[in-house]
Amino acid sequence: MIKDIKQVAKKLKINSKDMFCYGNNIAKINIDQNVDNNKINNSKLILVTAMTSNKSGIGKTTVSIGLADALNKLGKNVCLALREPSLGPVFGIKGGATGGGKSQVYPSDEINLHFTGDFHAIAQANNLLCSILDNHMFFGNALKIDPKKIFIKRCLDINERSLRDISYKIKDYTIKTGFNITAASEVMAILCLSENLDVLKQNLGNILVALDISGNPIYARDLNAQESMTILLKDAIKPNLVQTLDGTPAFVHLGPFANIAHGCNSITATKQALKYADYVVTEAGFGSDLGAEKFLNIKTRELNKTPDAVVLVVTISVVKEHGDGDLLKGFENVKKHIHNLTTVFGLNTVVAINVHKQDTQKEINQITKLIEAMGVKVRKAQGFAKGASGCLELANLVIENAKNPTKMNYVYEMTDSIEAKIEKIAQKVYGAKKVKYSKKAKQQLALIHQFGFDKFYVNMAKTQFSFSGDKSLLGAPKNFTLTIDDIEIRSGAKMIVAIAGKMLLMPGLGKNSNYNNMIIRSYGKIDGLF
Amino acid sequence: MIKDIKQVAKKLKINSKDMFCYGNNIAKINIDQNVDNNKINNSKLILVTAMTSNKSGIGKTTVSIGLADALNKLGKNVCLALREPSLGPVFGIKGGATGGGKSQVYPSDEINLHFTGDFHAIAQANNLLCSILDNHMFFGNALKIDPKKIFIKRCLDINERSLRDISYKIKDYTIKTGFNITAASEVMAILCLSENLDVLKQNLGNILVALDISGNPIYARDLNAQESMTILLKDAIKPNLVQTLDGTPAFVHLGPFANIAHGCNSITATKQALKYADYVVTEAGFGSDLGAEKFLNIKTRELNKTPDAVVLVVTISVVKEHGDGDLLKGFENVKKHIHNLTTVFGLNTVVAINVHKQDTQKEINQITKLIEAMGVKVRKAQGFAKGASGCLELANLVIENAKNPTKMNYVYEMTDSIEAKIEKIAQKVYGAKKVKYSKKAKQQLALIHQFGFDKFYVNMAKTQFSFSGDKSLLGAPKNFTLTIDDIEIRSGAKMIVAIAGKMLLMPGLGKNSNYNNMIIRSYGKIDGLF
Repeated sequence: MIKDIKQVAKKLKINSKDMFCYGNNIAKINIDQNVDNNKINNSKLILVTAMTSNKSGIGKTTVSIGLADALNKLGKNVCLALREPSLGPVFGIKGGATGGGKSQVYPSDEINLHFTGDFHAIAQANNLLCSILDNHMFFGNALKIDPKKIFIKRCLDINERSLRDISYKIKDYTIKTGFNITAASEVMAILCLSENLDVLKQNLGNILVALDISGNPIYARDLNAQESMTILLKDAIKPNLVQTLDGTPAFVHLGPFANIAHGCNSITATKQALKYADYVVTEAGFGSDLGAEKFLNIKTRELNKTPDAVVLVVTISVVKEHGDGDLLKGFENVKKHIHNLTTVFGLNTVVAINVHKQDTQKEINQITKLIEAMGVKVRKAQGFAKGASGCLELANLVIENAKNPTKMNYVYEMTDSIEAKIEKIAQKVYGAKKVKYSKKAKQQLALIHQFGFDKFYVNMAKTQFSFSGDKSLLGAPKNFTLTIDDIEIRSGAKMIVAIAGKMLLMPGLGKNSNYNNMIIRSYGKIDGLF
Repeated sequence: MIKDIKQVAKKLKINSKDMFCYGNNIAKINIDQNVDNNKINNSKLILVTAMTSNKSGIGKTTVSIGLADALNKLGKNVCLALREPSLGPVFGIKGGATGGGKSQVYPSDEINLHFTGDFHAIAQANNLLCSILDNHMFFGNALKIDPKKIFIKRCLDINERSLRDISYKIKDYTIKTGFNITAASEVMAILCLSENLDVLKQNLGNILVALDISGNPIYARDLNAQESMTILLKDAIKPNLVQTLDGTPAFVHLGPFANIAHGCNSITATKQALKYADYVVTEAGFGSDLGAEKFLNIKTRELNKTPDAVVLVVTISVVKEHGDGDLLKGFENVKKHIHNLTTVFGLNTVVAINVHKQDTQKEINQITKLIEAMGVKVRKAQGFAKGASGCLELANLVIENAKNPTKMNYVYEMTDSIEAKIEKIAQKVYGAKKVKYSKKAKQQLALIHQFGFDKFYVNMAKTQFSFSGDKSLLGAPKNFTLTIDDIEIRSGAKMIVAIAGKMLLMPGLGKNSNYNNMIIRSYGKIDGLF
């Protein structure tokens, strides 16, 4: 079923002069600046999100791919818009992220490895900025940068526990800093949210890199770093076109994590997909409290379009986990996600049960009734086992649902203060009673007010295992206090990152990591990559 | 004159199924394992090297390209084999490395930027190894690795002064380490010298990463890192095909620096070039004491072929610099290079004067006579200004010269001890009277003997500005002592790196670096990149 990528592009009516091919299966597509807004408004944007995950995940990517393949099979002009996997976790415990079973994007080896080099380019741009800043301090520090107030960190796309906290000297200054994983970097967020090179350059220039010794902000533009950073990202901004095993076109582009970052693929990919296809299936990472909240509150504002329909993916075994083995009790989690999507955001929502072998018919009937009792329709998704034909009913339901999109409610207004934004997310989406701020967070809030950053987005960094900040609180916890332990300013990405609990922005390898089980043959075939 | 890369490949009779194209101008070529040794023996290998450089360089790459274009114009089936530029210095002071004027490889922007991602892949593989080692120590350190005896360092392709020396903690261990530039990493050297994935994997497994607390060696294979590292390098091992502005095919692949590393492009590129073309023009970095010495003593042994002819590039202004403005006095430097190539190595050598505008006819005549008095022929190279037609006489001379190749003398035997190898290079090639070792170097030599690494190559790390270890000694210094300050073991690359003086394996940005003068336009055009 795999076609030459030029054939895939042709299906979307992409002009061959707008393609830069990497072999026969991957292409970057030029960003068309003259997008017809009417076409984008008329295209159907389908957001796939999920209930609260366990360590194995819920299968959003697999369902997204199965759904797109089914829409394709039903004769729709459809295109996926997905995140590209981070290379670090491929060698760690989490592994790759290209779907599963019969619902995969292809070529998965390449997508899980270096792909078109986007993540490397981001790390290079980010780290060049750090080098330029240090070089400025080395050569006299004319800007009087305070060595204790440097905010930017380096990044690598490797699980690197050791580099979380490092120190070194620049002449007499001792610098304490560290590396984050590339997916958590501000440059990743900026690239995801920039629709062309000019916007990208401006956003990169706006990165708050440090304070001077009088407490004034120093931006990347003060170091004149934005031109060289944009040069390093000139190709990474273009979305990558691949296909599913079924030949459905798929943009797979950029990948901030959804627990510590905003969790959506690039705006360029989504926009080009909406331009070329009539149905765009996209996913946002982790549960609807994380990726979908950020998709809806942040990305839709930048995109200037809200979803026409939402698919909430549930997995019966995980529902039971949320209820200590009891499906009815665990359903509280699903209920809260449905409530958020339909009532808080006011979106057309359907539920997809990502069916696993061990699920019994009784369980499927039971959860179906519970969902339908909420006035929400539900279908089985069997893309893993059956590919497109396992998602046809879901696809038909989604087509129906997307016909009459609702007007979405935003959880916060952009004019709200940062505290109000955080509290609205915590209360309306998470179900928290109140929000508490650590001393450090309060200091950061003071800076935010001082610098006039109140009009930024809020990007919550929070465990993916609970609606709350405590990963042990399963189901739908209530009356809890969400504690914001730290706050990072991402002025380039127009985001304030509010960190609840100890969220590591750099993962480590595990004791038994995937790298240990991989083999490559003489002729290049790889076993155990994902 | 720029052709589609498929047309360039067709000229070399490369089967299209062996190509992986990156757009229309760049391709990776599969490594053909069944190379006809007869063909390789009959193809003419032309090594371009140079006199001792100043900061501006001598123009080896420009002459190599001009020469290849001229051979092409004369109807020869010719291919270049060059190093790919390191991204770090592109933003620093040195700038890019794709030739100049009418003698350039194309597309130079891409080649100077991320190109096909080879350097990023090398950094990723190298840094994954470091992460795996640290992770092993974090989870109980079963191998009893001594935290004070970790030899491997991380790398980045950025000029990063600050990261030369960093420290961090792994549980109770304090680790003092740092980053080198990717071009100086052992993984770069290994990849350059490995002809296929099996050899690569074996060499990566042989990297000496640390000692245990009893002083026993710990290799990368003891951490089972070689499979995942090879997976990350599966494409980077394949040579990149591009073309000159004149349409001459050029492999541009991998790039260790020649002062701190071995200074030659990959063995896979040279081998495939010899397979597909009748004339292969290749260069080795910096002066003949550095890149060419390493090419001749190390690479030819791995390649199993010596050069059929050598071109020594000289620049009149630099000759004068070596003589405090006096050409005759400065000629001592050229004389020593000619002596080394013709007498020490016993190779067919011609001299190319890389003509600059300011050179007078009188100076050209004077140096021509001096060279011819040594029994060596000389031609002007005017590739920068005139392209192929500026190098036709040089090309004809090279064709003549390559007809009857000599049997090359090696400077050392592989059975020599490491000390003997170092001393033979220092005395025969550099003109040193004797070699002195620091205490640290002596300790390392003791380890080398203990572990049986005497049969390895010696890779000298030495200033490029002098035959000696002291960059202020221009011309052809004599009776000096070469001090080896440190020695690094690169068992994966089968190399001992002997470091004379304080050779930084990680450069810094300069006060006025190139990044500061670059601009990118809305539509992607870059000014000031190189």
